[in-house]
Amino acid sequence: MVRLERPIIGITMGDPAGIGPEIAVKTLSKKEVYEISKPIVIGDYGVMKHASESITKLYLPIKPVESVKDANFKHGEINVLDLKNVNLEKLVHGKVDAMCGKASFEYIRKVIELALNKEVDATVTGPIHKEAINKAGYHYAGHTEIYAKLTKTKSYAMMLAEGDFRVAHVSTHVSLRKACSRVKKRRVLEVIKLADDAVKSLGIKNPKIGVAGLNPHSGEGGLFGNEEIKGIMPAVEGAKKLGINVEGPIPPDTIFPKAKSGLYDIVVAMYHDQGHIPLKMAGFVWDEGRGQWANVSGVNVTLGLPIIRTSVDHGVAFGKAGKGKASPDSLIEAVKTAVQMSYSKR
Amino acid sequence: MVRLERPIIGITMGDPAGIGPEIAVKTLSKKEVYEISKPIVIGDYGVMKHASESITKLYLPIKPVESVKDANFKHGEINVLDLKNVNLEKLVHGKVDAMCGKASFEYIRKVIELALNKEVDATVTGPIHKEAINKAGYHYAGHTEIYAKLTKTKSYAMMLAEGDFRVAHVSTHVSLRKACSRVKKRRVLEVIKLADDAVKSLGIKNPKIGVAGLNPHSGEGGLFGNEEIKGIMPAVEGAKKLGINVEGPIPPDTIFPKAKSGLYDIVVAMYHDQGHIPLKMAGFVWDEGRGQWANVSGVNVTLGLPIIRTSVDHGVAFGKAGKGKASPDSLIEAVKTAVQMSYSKR
Repeated sequence: MVRLERPIIGITMGDPAGIGPEIAVKTLSKKEVYEISKPIVIGDYGVMKHASESITKLYLPIKPVESVKDANFKHGEINVLDLKNVNLEKLVHGKVDAMCGKASFEYIRKVIELALNKEVDATVTGPIHKEAINKAGYHYAGHTEIYAKLTKTKSYAMMLAEGDFRVAHVSTHVSLRKACSRVKKRRVLEVIKLADDAVKSLGIKNPKIGVAGLNPHSGEGGLFGNEEIKGIMPAVEGAKKLGINVEGPIPPDTIFPKAKSGLYDIVVAMYHDQGHIPLKMAGFVWDEGRGQWANVSGVNVTLGLPIIRTSVDHGVAFGKAGKGKASPDSLIEAVKTAVQMSYSKR
Repeated sequence: MVRLERPIIGITMGDPAGIGPEIAVKTLSKKEVYEISKPIVIGDYGVMKHASESITKLYLPIKPVESVKDANFKHGEINVLDLKNVNLEKLVHGKVDAMCGKASFEYIRKVIELALNKEVDATVTGPIHKEAINKAGYHYAGHTEIYAKLTKTKSYAMMLAEGDFRVAHVSTHVSLRKACSRVKKRRVLEVIKLADDAVKSLGIKNPKIGVAGLNPHSGEGGLFGNEEIKGIMPAVEGAKKLGINVEGPIPPDTIFPKAKSGLYDIVVAMYHDQGHIPLKMAGFVWDEGRGQWANVSGVNVTLGLPIIRTSVDHGVAFGKAGKGKASPDSLIEAVKTAVQMSYSKR
């Protein structure tokens, strides 16, 4: 196998008042990350320096750069594309703040621009706070919507992955009632195709896709709801005709343990929590003694974009911010997934 | 501690064409089951004999009795209250059949009668096939509905448990759309109370109850659905006023890993799959190599009845029936749970 050049990964720092800067420093302290990628942080020099020295006490030198081509990508120091959005004296950890919201949004806008210009091979996002970006005047539900808008993408879906256990969602941030109405042939087929492409881009040659039902027991032949008959079955048939190896609808309560054990490479879930509950059961562990999460592994990937975007699947963790105790595991996984996807895009 | 007399547990054999008879024989071959209980099977002598000799090859003697008082409850033989419903020559494993449906229903009717007459302390049900009982003219969605009808119970709920991880459901076998409409203050409060009683009856002195939201992120303050604001919050407040130690609504995707790790003794789930998905993620393991479930532990308990009813949380497994490969783990757990609940009812 030819050794390909490491892909350049643009990592946004996330909300400066959250755990984003801390987990970015921790992630970029790992040699393994540099062995597979050329990472650069899109953020603020001052905030990263503070995270390196005062929060993590790793004392990794932070090197501000003005463009990606100035970065050296060497393990042992951290390259930051410095957008100079944060006044460090005004930064308070764990607080919703318009300055931080504006900064968060600018990092995302910049990394998307870099990816569209092919200055980076893939983008990885740190956690942001929705209220903060809204306070700053950017009215979006989250990263996914920002990426869709700025890349002019109409057909996209959210994928979550925890190791080989993956879920793509037909809908996400809408009420459960609205989510029921989104289960239509066209959209389900679209997400089956996006899911098939996604696992192929992760290097899986002949992926097997499972499609969940919407209703209990997949509706039992129309007894409890007919979305399976009207929307899901026709979508699965349509996907089969396209040569996709797909099965469904499978009862929602048994498809996930089956997928977790390897029967499916990805599950198409009909709504946010149908996919999020099993993924977080697999990747999240609560430490009851310490009253905090002991583990929050998992990666969030936006499917259907013209550029690659992976992300941590946790939030800003304001309660933990500034304390040096946040785990970088999810961010490390997000970088690894972005690297995998970069190779298939070449 | 005073050693109380072992409770008498009436176990229905389930559909004769399924794995019920087999797992009943395997369960009653265990000495540990007799150490804690006095078990009696409500079923058919001939079917149990066949399961003992030809299916499991355990060759445990089957002793038919005409009433519970004739049973001896000794480990080494199995007491069966013989309802003589099955013509063995016509029995085909793995087939939906009206004879088997009628038999399944009669076992349930009988065990409920025994419990109401206090001839047994608790009832445990083996798996039945809904189509079979309907073919026999009994139009019920399942066990829960039969129990509710025959015991004249209006207010009840389904609980699933896998070890100390427990979920009670606001609704079960209705479409997801209808389930959204069932999230009303009165019903949610009712299920919180049933859940609180249930865990207390399992010997937990000061239980802590978590209530899930309905919508993603619990609706984010009304942004994605208002059932939390209109139904769930008022129910939680109402329960607090009754002195119940309850929290919620908690986002559906994080409440379950928290409960699994011990933060809550029971979760009130808003719909069938919201509770079933995490429970089966915890208790079900698929064996991809053999193409079958390697583990299906978990217990189903009907809350709110005047009698105790626990059950396996799997089906008749027609594909596996008659082959001797079914696991009795779920039935053993169901018996243990019934025993625990019997002591608190005394």
